[in-house]
Amino acid sequence: MSQIDPAVTEAVHLTAGRARQAARQLAAASSTIKNQALLAMADGLIAAADLIVQENRVDLELGQENGLSSALLDRLALTPERIIGIVESLRDLVGQDDPVGQLVRGTTLPNGIRLRQIRVPLGVIGVIYEARPNVTAETAGLALKSGNAVILRGGSAAQRTNHAIVEVLRQAAGQVGLPVDVIQTIDSEGRAGVQALMRARGLVDLLVPRGGAGLIQAVVTEAQVPVIETGVGNCHVYVDASADLVQASQIVLNSKTQRPSVCNAAETLLVDQAVADSFLPQILAALASQSVKLHLDERAGALAPAGVDWLPAVSADWDTEYLALEMAVGVVDGLDAAIEHIQRHSSGHTEVICTADLARAQRFTDRVDAAAVMVNVSTRFTDGGQFGLGAEVGISTQKLHARGPMGLAELTTTKWICWGQGQVRT
Amino acid sequence: MSQIDPAVTEAVHLTAGRARQAARQLAAASSTIKNQALLAMADGLIAAADLIVQENRVDLELGQENGLSSALLDRLALTPERIIGIVESLRDLVGQDDPVGQLVRGTTLPNGIRLRQIRVPLGVIGVIYEARPNVTAETAGLALKSGNAVILRGGSAAQRTNHAIVEVLRQAAGQVGLPVDVIQTIDSEGRAGVQALMRARGLVDLLVPRGGAGLIQAVVTEAQVPVIETGVGNCHVYVDASADLVQASQIVLNSKTQRPSVCNAAETLLVDQAVADSFLPQILAALASQSVKLHLDERAGALAPAGVDWLPAVSADWDTEYLALEMAVGVVDGLDAAIEHIQRHSSGHTEVICTADLARAQRFTDRVDAAAVMVNVSTRFTDGGQFGLGAEVGISTQKLHARGPMGLAELTTTKWICWGQGQVRT
Repeated sequence: MSQIDPAVTEAVHLTAGRARQAARQLAAASSTIKNQALLAMADGLIAAADLIVQENRVDLELGQENGLSSALLDRLALTPERIIGIVESLRDLVGQDDPVGQLVRGTTLPNGIRLRQIRVPLGVIGVIYEARPNVTAETAGLALKSGNAVILRGGSAAQRTNHAIVEVLRQAAGQVGLPVDVIQTIDSEGRAGVQALMRARGLVDLLVPRGGAGLIQAVVTEAQVPVIETGVGNCHVYVDASADLVQASQIVLNSKTQRPSVCNAAETLLVDQAVADSFLPQILAALASQSVKLHLDERAGALAPAGVDWLPAVSADWDTEYLALEMAVGVVDGLDAAIEHIQRHSSGHTEVICTADLARAQRFTDRVDAAAVMVNVSTRFTDGGQFGLGAEVGISTQKLHARGPMGLAELTTTKWICWGQGQVRT
Repeated sequence: MSQIDPAVTEAVHLTAGRARQAARQLAAASSTIKNQALLAMADGLIAAADLIVQENRVDLELGQENGLSSALLDRLALTPERIIGIVESLRDLVGQDDPVGQLVRGTTLPNGIRLRQIRVPLGVIGVIYEARPNVTAETAGLALKSGNAVILRGGSAAQRTNHAIVEVLRQAAGQVGLPVDVIQTIDSEGRAGVQALMRARGLVDLLVPRGGAGLIQAVVTEAQVPVIETGVGNCHVYVDASADLVQASQIVLNSKTQRPSVCNAAETLLVDQAVADSFLPQILAALASQSVKLHLDERAGALAPAGVDWLPAVSADWDTEYLALEMAVGVVDGLDAAIEHIQRHSSGHTEVICTADLARAQRFTDRVDAAAVMVNVSTRFTDGGQFGLGAEVGISTQKLHARGPMGLAELTTTKWICWGQGQVRT
């Protein structure tokens, strides 16, 4: 691993130290105070909207000069409407249950000890993300409501925008009597700052990378602090022989095209050979008509209607998260072959079966190992909001701590509390 | 990081691949089958007890030749009685609830989707431990009951004993129709095998180091697979001004001396200056009479009775897990000073306050951040068995996934299952 400038390490450690102090005060804050802070953050963003948009314009101009793609520029851009969206997501958090202090389980032991396991904040959370300024405020809001101090590191292309947002959020925290250091950034420390944060063992309780597969992979392999892997979704839809093919067609189209750039979009379609003849020609035509670029295996290719453009699928296609209007399509010999394909290529995000057969639906949900396994619904439902869990800091594709949408409860840990009357062990 | 012999990496990857296959079959096994396997494992160990003791004798002889300490030799030694203990712990697992398939939460969403979050096995668990053959069978039993394949790596000094035990366990799994590869070891791959296991990203779902601080630290810093940190316990007992001093004395003695070599033994005693005069002389004499080596700060030293030997505490003492009849003792200026000391030096395991004052008890349990925070009980109660959770694979001192005793439920993850009727997102 590369050396880090000691001055950067020191700056990051000082930031983390301030976060720890702030986290201790925040952990003791009531839900009322935290909700007041969220409302002050929302009001502050509205009051500062002009300034934020102005700073964002500078970031956008620099981005254009630096040749950012139009997709990246679109993610970076903040309009007054988008600021309203952020403000609303902060206000929505007020209505959500505060997980801190919730009882997980408890009992009175035979020896009279009163035992309770309750939820407590993790402490200091680091979040590394790309140039998406909405993530700044939403992540800070989630951290605050769950009682955690947060250290943010956004993409450098959004540095001015993030700075303006973070200043507003810090002031809002201060207004209600919380330490301003519950929200900090290390944006000014550059890439070395990210490295130092990843190595800050004992100073950071959780690091969440939010972004593309490259960012996540780098953080997961290099970090020496606890990390939760989020968001890589190589999601499959399997259409079983017994499926209602009209319904299956709607599910495939929705999973692929409703918002192709996100992790819960489908990337691969698998079709049982028994219905390949009847299903594939129409779904391939429908996908093509929605500009989906098709990568077909041999059997699927043989069923492509005339006039539909396609490429032969190569082995890398089965492991590719296109995040675009692009899909790999294969024909499989029944349910178990589909499960086997999914087991080999799944990123553990969301896997769907379209079927009318109860036993096959059960076998699929039993055998497929992923954050979400679904029967007869679009992959696009794997989402904190859709699941009724509220806002999310990301969708965990790992198995430890949290799996699937990570909301407020997933940003907490637990503490066992024992009240006794002098018990000793014999 | 050092290079690993590619042949070792390949062998470990093959082991992990077999474990994955076996884990898939085990995940689908009923509780009945898993319980039959546990009973067959218990019976098998009884039937093979003579052979195991014989192999253990060879390990012990080699250990003596290699100069192992008597404490290590004692941990390594297996007598018929100790084998009975292991057998009983396997049989106890039969009576414990199977976590696999348990419902965590669920609802019907407004759009009609039936949403359930259920517990599922993690998959493949690696356990790295020292030369304690009882851990081999107990860990394998916990993994099996929770539906996970396990890859074991015990201390090399116990290699022959472990080999004999593992052969019995594998045969027992096979007898009830489970794949024998639900239990494997990589003992024959040496230290390079451990390294390869730590880097087997995507092949190992959880790695648990069980052992001394050095082992744990090495695994936590080097591993590229998910790890849970267990068992370092720099536990404190704080005696508040309002404490019942007779009770406090019993708690301090029990916490320190009842089993000093384990992680939930106390290492530091903090006494409020208001009761230092009345409490310290007697507790120091009592500790000394039980052969506890004392490291006293200046104020505690001034109150040590004549005839009690002690050393001045140096700063390292406050961070030392002695795991022996040895204790650091300090005087603090009240509750907040005690909390501050604990925040600085705690390893996040178990922290105790002795007090009769309700507000101080609450402040302590609110402010101290550890796996277990206790009022008027011995530190020694932080234990899966004592908490009524059954056997444990270790005590987590980290905040992610599991905190405190890790039993069967902590060896599982969750899966969201959605049943729909064709829902798509709009």
